[in-house]
Amino acid sequence: MPSLMLPVCILGSNYEGKANFCTVAWFTMIDDEPPTIGLLLGKKRRTVDGIRQNRTFSVNLPSTKLATKTDFVGLYSGYKEDKSGVFRVSYGELGNAPLVDDCPMSVECKLKDIVEFEGTDLVIGEIVEVHVDEECLTDEEPDIVKMDPLLYGSPGASYFQMGNKVADAFKVGKKLKVPNRKKDEN
Amino acid sequence: MPSLMLPVCILGSNYEGKANFCTVAWFTMIDDEPPTIGLLLGKKRRTVDGIRQNRTFSVNLPSTKLATKTDFVGLYSGYKEDKSGVFRVSYGELGNAPLVDDCPMSVECKLKDIVEFEGTDLVIGEIVEVHVDEECLTDEEPDIVKMDPLLYGSPGASYFQMGNKVADAFKVGKKLKVPNRKKDEN
Repeated sequence: MPSLMLPVCILGSNYEGKANFCTVAWFTMIDDEPPTIGLLLGKKRRTVDGIRQNRTFSVNLPSTKLATKTDFVGLYSGYKEDKSGVFRVSYGELGNAPLVDDCPMSVECKLKDIVEFEGTDLVIGEIVEVHVDEECLTDEEPDIVKMDPLLYGSPGASYFQMGNKVADAFKVGKKLKVPNRKKDEN
Repeated sequence: MPSLMLPVCILGSNYEGKANFCTVAWFTMIDDEPPTIGLLLGKKRRTVDGIRQNRTFSVNLPSTKLATKTDFVGLYSGYKEDKSGVFRVSYGELGNAPLVDDCPMSVECKLKDIVEFEGTDLVIGEIVEVHVDEECLTDEEPDIVKMDPLLYGSPGASYFQMGNKVADAFKVGKKLKVPNRKKDEN
């Protein structure tokens, strides 16, 4: 297993009308247009039962302040534990994708597909609405520094905060001098 | 589009016997057993042509020191630019998955599948070998802090380093007091 530093999200769905949540570190954007997100989950998950029921879900990005609650919903199964009271919850455009109000950012998703692998399922959703805490905006844009995202590092199973800016992406690489690089190819 | 802090990797493959690389921030583990990784890529990529050719690839995790070179291989297309000279490269068990020696960790993968979505392809590989820089080990385990992974934050398109440890995962959540929680369900 590789060693990775991953963002953590809280996946939410309603099951029989009640909000349920689980913690996911294996997720990624799948496309920009339309904005599509994918999350890997074990085969038996109450949150996925809820997603199949309503074909909606939420992806909530916790700040480091929410480490304890985020860890809690990852530790205990929704089959055994009623997790509807852990967070302050509201509903947005879709009406039944439970948003974690304590998170600086939440997105509402419509289920597009579930791709089944051997040991996991890839839940794919189109993002239909993005909610960002006003305090985490700078010039009306989401500000990742203000959001203070919770990161998960393994092995070692620890939560981390983000650190300082290192460089500008899509920019710093232009400075690189590569030997014998042909100018007309840039 | 949501705002995210993501680890960055350098995806490598050989194309017609020459190493080629591109930068990927949309990737995730897919399974633990066997260890399986998935990366999302645009439809036309020289690195994916190479993966289809050999059915092997490498995933290399750069440290913040490698920000400039990592950005470079993300800025320029392998169709126009020969990127084989950007990194010090070696080969491992698979023989044709180019490993970036400058990275604290690299994994060699065998292609398992390519799942085609509308605008992107999900390249899925089984990890067959993990290479970790000896200087990044603590008690013979990879140490994420020593690896100093390069993170990508959007919007804003900036690279960041990781910050301080916040809490222990799978542990801190046990302290949470949930009102009306039934003891026998824990």
